[in-house]
Amino acid sequence: MWMDANVEVKGANGSRASIRQHVLNGLLLFTGDMRHLDTYMQDKLFVLQLAVGVLRGVAMVTLANNPLSGALIVIALAWSSPWMSLLGTLGVLASMLTALITGQDSATVTAGVHGYNGMLVALLMGASSSAGDWYWWLLLPACFGSATCVFLYNSLSSVLDRWDLPVSVFPFNTVIILYLLCTGPNNPYFPHHPTLPPGALEPNKTDLIAAEVMRGMVLGVGQIYACEEMAPSLLILGAVLLYSPLMLLHALVGSAVGMLAGLSMAVRHECLYSGLSGFNGALGCMSIGGLCFVFNWRIHLLAVAGAFISSYLDIALGNLLGTVGLPACSWASTIIVTLMLLLTGSVTMYRIPRDQVMAPEHNVSFHRSWKPGKAAEAEDTDVNN
Amino acid sequence: MWMDANVEVKGANGSRASIRQHVLNGLLLFTGDMRHLDTYMQDKLFVLQLAVGVLRGVAMVTLANNPLSGALIVIALAWSSPWMSLLGTLGVLASMLTALITGQDSATVTAGVHGYNGMLVALLMGASSSAGDWYWWLLLPACFGSATCVFLYNSLSSVLDRWDLPVSVFPFNTVIILYLLCTGPNNPYFPHHPTLPPGALEPNKTDLIAAEVMRGMVLGVGQIYACEEMAPSLLILGAVLLYSPLMLLHALVGSAVGMLAGLSMAVRHECLYSGLSGFNGALGCMSIGGLCFVFNWRIHLLAVAGAFISSYLDIALGNLLGTVGLPACSWASTIIVTLMLLLTGSVTMYRIPRDQVMAPEHNVSFHRSWKPGKAAEAEDTDVNN
Amino acid sequence: MWMDANVEVKGANGSRASIRQHVLNGLLLFTGDMRHLDTYMQDKLFVLQLAVGVLRGVAMVTLANNPLSGALIVIALAWSSPWMSLLGTLGVLASMLTALITGQDSATVTAGVHGYNGMLVALLMGASSSAGDWYWWLLLPACFGSATCVFLYNSLSSVLDRWDLPVSVFPFNTVIILYLLCTGPNNPYFPHHPTLPPGALEPNKTDLIAAEVMRGMVLGVGQIYACEEMAPSLLILGAVLLYSPLMLLHALVGSAVGMLAGLSMAVRHECLYSGLSGFNGALGCMSIGGLCFVFNWRIHLLAVAGAFISSYLDIALGNLLGTVGLPACSWASTIIVTLMLLLTGSVTMYRIPRDQVMAPEHNVSFHRSWKPGKAAEAEDTDVNN
Repeated sequence: MWMDANVEVKGANGSRASIRQHVLNGLLLFTGDMRHLDTYMQDKLFVLQLAVGVLRGVAMVTLANNPLSGALIVIALAWSSPWMSLLGTLGVLASMLTALITGQDSATVTAGVHGYNGMLVALLMGASSSAGDWYWWLLLPACFGSATCVFLYNSLSSVLDRWDLPVSVFPFNTVIILYLLCTGPNNPYFPHHPTLPPGALEPNKTDLIAAEVMRGMVLGVGQIYACEEMAPSLLILGAVLLYSPLMLLHALVGSAVGMLAGLSMAVRHECLYSGLSGFNGALGCMSIGGLCFVFNWRIHLLAVAGAFISSYLDIALGNLLGTVGLPACSWASTIIVTLMLLLTGSVTMYRIPRDQVMAPEHNVSFHRSWKPGKAAEAEDTDVNN
Repeated sequence: MWMDANVEVKGANGSRASIRQHVLNGLLLFTGDMRHLDTYMQDKLFVLQLAVGVLRGVAMVTLANNPLSGALIVIALAWSSPWMSLLGTLGVLASMLTALITGQDSATVTAGVHGYNGMLVALLMGASSSAGDWYWWLLLPACFGSATCVFLYNSLSSVLDRWDLPVSVFPFNTVIILYLLCTGPNNPYFPHHPTLPPGALEPNKTDLIAAEVMRGMVLGVGQIYACEEMAPSLLILGAVLLYSPLMLLHALVGSAVGMLAGLSMAVRHECLYSGLSGFNGALGCMSIGGLCFVFNWRIHLLAVAGAFISSYLDIALGNLLGTVGLPACSWASTIIVTLMLLLTGSVTMYRIPRDQVMAPEHNVSFHRSWKPGKAAEAEDTDVNN
Repeated sequence: MWMDANVEVKGANGSRASIRQHVLNGLLLFTGDMRHLDTYMQDKLFVLQLAVGVLRGVAMVTLANNPLSGALIVIALAWSSPWMSLLGTLGVLASMLTALITGQDSATVTAGVHGYNGMLVALLMGASSSAGDWYWWLLLPACFGSATCVFLYNSLSSVLDRWDLPVSVFPFNTVIILYLLCTGPNNPYFPHHPTLPPGALEPNKTDLIAAEVMRGMVLGVGQIYACEEMAPSLLILGAVLLYSPLMLLHALVGSAVGMLAGLSMAVRHECLYSGLSGFNGALGCMSIGGLCFVFNWRIHLLAVAGAFISSYLDIALGNLLGTVGLPACSWASTIIVTLMLLLTGSVTMYRIPRDQVMAPEHNVSFHRSWKPGKAAEAEDTDVNN
């Protein structure tokens, strides 16, 4: 229903209902994957195509393949910090241009596939830098790091393709860890804050404030973009809602699960309040429940289980990497989603092939029409073999 | 011969010899893989099948796929510590039930395949906990950790299947390390003892006691179940003997090799005395010499080499992980056995396909009958191609 | 042209030019891969074949598959330190004999394939040992470590073959790290110097000396053999030149790139002066620009990019492993070259299949004759499919 918005409404009885329906349909055009925009842009200027690709790349960080969501997120980042917004956009551009120069397929590039890793690298470099905003030298490693992501993306995809696995944000996680290792806290050119492990070194002395934890749950989604303020985080949630309400639900559930996991392991209160405990759970829950599998109740439970495992793995990795002052980034959710995609058994029949992933609402309606056909096809195959 | 016990003895000349033979055959029924039990259990209650599966799962930790061995081991653990025995059994049950709920093949589940990782996770959680016995909250992570093993087992098998490699205890090793990382030594809910690296930080001051090292060699087999007492370790050795004498031989040889490796690297004396230096060697030697390859003298040498490499790798990993207070678990033997299974060259002709692995004695007799057939088949293939 | 040296020169007008041409052709016989030597040696004594294999193995550390280069390098090492030269040669021999004993293909063994990992292990054990030269007990771990490389080489090749990737020096890097972890700095039998991370813990106080950095650039190539002296390093450069001038160019460019990367990250000055910052860049640049791809300007840029990424990765890994006193060895270049070989897209058409890798000059001339054929073949395939 959500996705059939551009289907014509026939035989509307009342004109007011018809108009309301038309407006609604018009609005729905801006939700979901907006594939119709691609067909519309096909014969437009390449720069415009690239701009749409950049916005898609920005939004794909939070798994929402929608250029309007991307625009909202850029605004949210600019609201929170113009310098971070600049860095992020530059990161997307740098990696997309590298992809073009190294001869990647230009349709893939304008789809924004090579953008999100570069954006995250540039954002996290900015967030971890202790040289303050508008430290222009940082643009150098930001561009170099974003460009490296393209190579890594390409190489990893050769290996992961064998199992039809997405490369996801493995390049970002690798590059940012290597950058932080390369520079170290006292580097004269690119200093950065060392990260503390989430596990409390001494018992938390203050009492836990429930309202702050609730706040942290919302900030958990903002932390995907290293954003720690409330209003921009709400705008980012709005961007996710624009893409798909089911996705928003999974984001909030995942973030809440992350808070629970953090509480059960008695992590430092700052981790809970800032949302750092939540964002891996949110990403894991969104990927499993929203994108990689067709939504239903079994998959929803799997997504919640995935969010729990992601969150615990995040605490574990955070404690390990924290011993050398490194953050755990989004390693946890990336690894867990990859492992969940490798699951065999009855769950595979809900798995969506990597090249057919779209907004969850579309996946559900697509799966309904597609299941009988597939079953018939399977029967045919049985007969033929 | 060992395995042909249920073949009828025909034309026995002396009746006394015949009776002796019958008794022997009856006894031999309880050794090896006891596949006949599976056919007998097929139409029994599912709970009984599950109980046999649990016992198989318990014994498969030490690679012995025999429910009676499993029963002996549960008794040995209960003798050493009833709390550990409870934890271990709960771990097997938790992971087997998770496997059933998530829709794994029920025949695989009742074969105990999903049990041993869960058991090890629960046992090691108990052994590393510093909250003392009967700390009931520990059942929570034990169940959750055991359940996670099932997911991990399933995902890893998708990848490792490409090379016909067993998943082995990779899930256990991963989950226990992550649990220990998650909680940390000072966790208010789940505190645990940090592990010291095996490498001595300062020269061993006391003289080495040879008798203690010999004792450590036996304890090395008990350490597979985190059991550090002599009598239960002997019972565990008995359980291995019941499965296969060749297996017992390899266990003791491997443990001895581990002691030698530990001595040559001057590890702390406690590591030698407690058997911690021996158990990776034992596991490596048993896997290579007993299960994965058909036993002969070349394979025996390979098994000894594997035990040496496993033991040295264990010391290396122990020193590395010990810097952050983590144990090396059985990573060393698991990795080395996996690498040995990847060997190409003349050794591959003794490798047993993963789904045909049985007790070593059966493998030998099976291989004898199977070699000519295979050669003939290979010739056929050559002709056809 | 370089490789067509043994083609007869017909119809030379002037006899002096003809003689000069003949002499040149004679000299060119000793350059490149010297495949003709293999055909000449075929029916010679096995010991002689093995000796040639040892020399090839020695040279293949620096990617030059030429026995004369190997001889030059052995001389260079003996010049720098006879003990290291002995260790290195013993390492090659130990691993080649292990390969023969474990039933590897003897043609592969005499080609030196199993030698270079063993040599590096033995050399690095000697270089890191703090027990001084001529500490005879070191021969024990050197032989054992070199032998282990053969197993690891074989196992890894089973996995990497799927993607047509070379095993390269992964076994060396693994074995030496494990050896250093196993022994630890205070081991009573095999003590070694802990390695400092390249990142400066406090700002470099002295000014940078440009001449020393230039010197470090040359030493960077010597550091491939853990050699820190000028004259032997020049001899090693000569050995590379004998194999291929293009290779030498890439070695120097790569080493220079490594220096630049080190400067940009403000590493300790000793790392620059000793050439430690350069050798990963050199190895990465040589592999990508020389061996794995057909040389042209695009590939040259790729090689420079690869050298940069290798050098930064080396600093990152050095900082990480330095926290536990370990060196980063040549992990960086090995990983980056492997990833570059996995690249998809337009670069793949210059990639040389693993079993056809020869000296870069030969690759270029071979590629010229081979491209039209391949294109024609591709067309045929298109028609047929």
